[in-house]
This record gives sequence, structure tokens and C-alpha cells, in this order.
Amino acid sequence: MSTPSPLSAAPGLPREVALLERWAGGSPRSPLQCNQRHESDAELIRLPGSPSVLALTTDAISEEIESGLYADPYLIGWMTVMVNASDLAAVGAAPLGILLNQTLPADLRDHDLDALQRGIRDACTVCGLPVLGGDTNVGARLHMGACAVGLIADGRLLTRRGARPGDRLFASGPLGLGGAFALARLLRPNVAPPPFQPASRLGEGQIVRRFATCCMDTSDGAIATLDELSRVSGVGFGLHAAEEILHPAALGAARAAGLPPWFMLAGPHGEFELLFTIPEPAITAFRAEAGAARWEPKEIGVVSAQSEMRVLANGRWLRLDTRAVRDAYAEAGGDPRAYLARLVTINATMTPADTP
Amino acid sequence: MSTPSPLSAAPGLPREVALLERWAGGSPRSPLQCNQRHESDAELIRLPGSPSVLALTTDAISEEIESGLYADPYLIGWMTVMVNASDLAAVGAAPLGILLNQTLPADLRDHDLDALQRGIRDACTVCGLPVLGGDTNVGARLHMGACAVGLIADGRLLTRRGARPGDRLFASGPLGLGGAFALARLLRPNVAPPPFQPASRLGEGQIVRRFATCCMDTSDGAIATLDELSRVSGVGFGLHAAEEILHPAALGAARAAGLPPWFMLAGPHGEFELLFTIPEPAITAFRAEAGAARWEPKEIGVVSAQSEMRVLANGRWLRLDTRAVRDAYAEAGGDPRAYLARLVTINATMTPADTP
Repeated sequence: MSTPSPLSAAPGLPREVALLERWAGGSPRSPLQCNQRHESDAELIRLPGSPSVLALTTDAISEEIESGLYADPYLIGWMTVMVNASDLAAVGAAPLGILLNQTLPADLRDHDLDALQRGIRDACTVCGLPVLGGDTNVGARLHMGACAVGLIADGRLLTRRGARPGDRLFASGPLGLGGAFALARLLRPNVAPPPFQPASRLGEGQIVRRFATCCMDTSDGAIATLDELSRVSGVGFGLHAAEEILHPAALGAARAAGLPPWFMLAGPHGEFELLFTIPEPAITAFRAEAGAARWEPKEIGVVSAQSEMRVLANGRWLRLDTRAVRDAYAEAGGDPRAYLARLVTINATMTPADTP
Repeated sequence: MSTPSPLSAAPGLPREVALLERWAGGSPRSPLQCNQRHESDAELIRLPGSPSVLALTTDAISEEIESGLYADPYLIGWMTVMVNASDLAAVGAAPLGILLNQTLPADLRDHDLDALQRGIRDACTVCGLPVLGGDTNVGARLHMGACAVGLIADGRLLTRRGARPGDRLFASGPLGLGGAFALARLLRPNVAPPPFQPASRLGEGQIVRRFATCCMDTSDGAIATLDELSRVSGVGFGLHAAEEILHPAALGAARAAGLPPWFMLAGPHGEFELLFTIPEPAITAFRAEAGAARWEPKEIGVVSAQSEMRVLANGRWLRLDTRAVRDAYAEAGGDPRAYLARLVTINATMTPADTP
């Protein structure tokens, strides 16, 4: 059991959403803001006197450093940029730039500082995301944050809300590498983690925005993402078999560890792909655009009217409690073994469902 | 002596500037960015297809918490907003909103969380700065960051560069409360610190932008600010007597501690006022606008061609090594007593100067 604390969640909402609600509840809002709280990966602000919409997001690499999940300074630099770029991708914004907000320990070694810096620079180059500025502090612990800015010139919005029953669910690429990486780093120290250096889907997001009814990145894992899309749009999902959805290295990692393949989708560490829904009549045009950009999005399921998740496992449809999966890491007090035990319990209590 | 570390500065530049140069040196830049690095309190990005310029800034409250300077959670919340709002003020931007980036300890007490939140909310309300969104993490230490966004609709820029000899130097208000607060908090535990809850000068900045040749906020103290303005514009300053410039509570604090009054201007903790330069022919119009807004800016000196600072003390003009003052806190390894000793040495070695 986790200790009760002022940071514990209100019942009925995912812990993370409840915390943010509690936090931001009383703050003044902007009449220019297009999205409600939790309804978009980036904040969407209509620019006065212009059709354009500004996309803004901020994200830090903090728990990943403290938990030991990220130890390589190059990866820390790379991810500081990517977690923010990925939010811009999920709203289909064109990148304008990034501000860095970093606290560096005074005893940080020279080659670690260089690696951190190279990780940032390489990620910015790959994303086409110029460094606009930032703030550097010296402190007891390494803490890396950033704020990314993008532009949606025509003002057409893509948020987490809008999926409709019958829409097809797509992923921008194979899933599960974030989960497999965390499994190796935190629970299987003798196993080499799979290569993990995700590139945000900025170009793909700009295509998705023209066709999709909703979109979100899988920064917290695919199942947490689907739980949130389900909550915000009031729909459910039928998900193809995990074997078809997973990256081969993630599937291999699950099998080597003797775990159900869907555990690689559970989060809370995701792979920074996009999940989005496309109405059936738009699929041909969408696939043509994607193909022209040499990108092959993957259809991984369907949107259902009933607000629950059904997953295909060994040829049978089972109900998966996505809220329980999403909250499991926090409920386990952040302990990886206790978390895995919770997933095992959830897996054992899945019940048969109708075809979605 | 401070320990040599990879974070130590290159010679010739202020430590803080050298660190940021080293850090951001290799990163890609944006062709839309109007300001060079260190030339502006906020990053200025021209919006494609529009005359408008976006102002972006990010700043964290981290060293202030670690050093014990800020302990009151309400003040921490308030300052998280104000340090960022103050950067928008210094470029004369109209506020669009703020994103919060916070790491909260899991054992944070309920009433401390509430106070932090009230501080943020009150500051946002005072600044007219809506909370657009943010990112909340749980971690070992409290860390508060934010990113503020503003708009300069007509695209007319105000940066740190542009002061010309003969321009008059102004402050948006009386100075020294930041220094006096730090003195009491860090060195005189038996003395009550003066009230310290600065309000950013957002409205004033929008007036200043129409008249001033350069502007910067005093987040790092007035002397560090003047050192930077001097470096960027290639000018110097003649500063009125500290007794005329200081807030009465700051002057009283210096006298009670037996310190030269200018120590209250030394930083590194400032008062978040604006320092700016106005060409003489524009002063009457500027004062009229300010008066209409019921604001009385204070003339505190003059811009000189020679790149040094001269201060009036006891009726004599003395040369002050602003670079030495600015670097003193870092050179003292962040130790308040060693820092004060350095200021005493600098004070003792001031040499007479000509009238500016």
C-alpha cells in the first residue's frame, strides 16, 4: 500500500489527472486557450489577430534520473528535447524552438557535461528545433527541463478529444521499446536493454493533423495513453494482439522475461510514438499522404462506443482495466517489483469480452 | 578559492555568460530569432507571416530554495511566476500566459502545498498571466520552474543592447530590497528581513518599450544588471549616490549592519525592478506617459562612453569593478560570509574617478 499523502489522488480520476486538477484548479485561464486541461499534449493558444495557433509544452526529465532509468548523460540530453518535441508532434505543430531549463551539479564531470550537451544538440538537429535560450542553475542534483514552442499556421486543431466509434486506431510505429527498456534497466540488470533513442514524430504529426479525430503521444506508455483518450473522448478501444503491435525487440524482451507481451505497453515509461484515430472514409487518403512521406503508420485497433478496452490475447477478446494499469506504478509507490506484481494480478483477473 | 570544475568560467566573460556560451555554443539557432544570446531578458521570435514578435522566457527557483534564501512556500510560488513575468516586462511584452514545471517532494505537507499554490495563483492574478498548463513530477527535492510567453504586437523590440552615451539611466522603483532580504535571511538570522514580495513591472515595461534604448530586469541585482548592460552596449554608467537610489528599508538594513549602502545593490539576489536608458529628448514624453499610468520612474544615473562604472559615494566619484562584484558570489563558492568579505575587499580598493 502506498502511504496517504497530500499528493494522493481524488477518487474517480487517474491519479496524475487528479493531481494536476488539484494543482491548477484555482488558477486564472486564458480566453485565447483553445484546449481544456488534459485535452491536449501541448497547450494551444490562438494568436490575437491571426488564424494561427501557438503550441506550447513543458516537460522535465526528473523521475527518470532519480529512479536510475536514465543514467547515460547523452540519453538524458536527447530525451530532454524529445519529450517536449513529442508533445508538439501530437498536436501536429511545426516546431519553432525550445528553451532549456537545467540544474547541473557543481561536480558534474567534463565528459558527462559534453555528452549531455551532445545529446541535446543532436536531438535538436534531428527535430529541426532551434535552441532559443534557457536558464542554467547549479544545484545538488541533475534536473533537466525544457519548454518547446510550435506553430499551427492554419489554426486547425488536433487534440486528445474527438475519437468516434468506428474510427480506426493507428500507431506511428511499433510499440513497446519504452517498456522493454525500463524492464531491463530497472528489473533485469544482467540483460542488455534494447536500443532506446526515440525520435519524435514531428513530420508525421503534421500529416496526422489533417486526417485524425484525436491524437496523443505514448510518453507514459500506450495503455495509459489509450486510457486517457478513452476518458477524454468517452469511447473505448479494441486492440489487436500485442504480438502484432510490439516492436520485435520488445516482444523478445517480454518472452525472455516470461511476461505477457502486453506488459511492454503498460508504461509508465513509453516509446514516444503517436496514437491517433482516423475515420474510415479518410484512411485511403491518409495512407497515401503517409506513403508519400515514406512513412508506414500501423493500424492497431478500432474505436468502440463502450468505454472499456478489449484486447485480443491468444485468439480471445479480454477486458483490460486500463485505469488500474495506469495507476499501478504510483500505487506501487514507484517500486518496480511491486509494480510488476500488480500487473501480474491485473493480468490474472482479466475477464472475457464480446468482440468490439 | 572556489574549486576548479567543468562549470568554471572562461576568462574575459562573466562566469554566468561563459557557462551559457559553453553550454549553448553548438546548438542550432533559429532564423526567426531577433535577439542574440544574452542580449535580451526574453527570447524574441518573429512570427512567420505577421509583424508580431513572441517573447519567451524560462526561469527556475532552485538555488534560492537550496541556499535557504526562500523557505516560505507562498513566496516560492509567488517568485516562480514573478521571475518569469519580470523577463517579459523587461522586453515590454504583453503577457499571454505561463507554463509551470514543478517537482514536488512526496512528503510535502498539505498546508505547504496549498501555500505554494496560493503564491502561484496570486502572482498570476497580479500579473494578468493565465496558467496555460505545465508538468508536475514527484521527486526528492522541491524544484519550481516556469516558462512565460508574451506578445509584442507591433514587433518593436527592446533589448539589453542600445544604450548610448548621454542617455539617462532609470529604475522602475527603489532598489536594494532583494539585497537587504538576502542579507537578513542568510547572514543576520536575528534580524527580521524587510518585506519582500516583488511585483513584476509588466505594465511599466510596455511604456518603457516605446521610449528606451535598452532595458534589463534586476533579477541578479542592480550592479550585475549594469555590468551586463555595459558589456552588451559597450558603454559605462555614472550612478547616483546609493542613498538616493535605495529603498528606505534597504538603506536602513545596510546601516544597521554597518555595511556600505551600495552592498544592497550588489546582488546576486535582486529586487526585480527594471533598469533602462532613455535618450534625453524623449524624457519629457516618457515621464508624461508614466505619470498618466500613475507610475514614477526614478532617474538614477547617466550613460557614459567609457566602459566603466563610476559611483557617487560621500560626494566623491569612485570606480566600481562591476565584473568583480558580479562574479564574487560564484568565486566565493556560494558562501554568504566569504561573499561579503569579497565585497569588503572590493569596497576598500575602489579608486577615485573623474566626473562621468
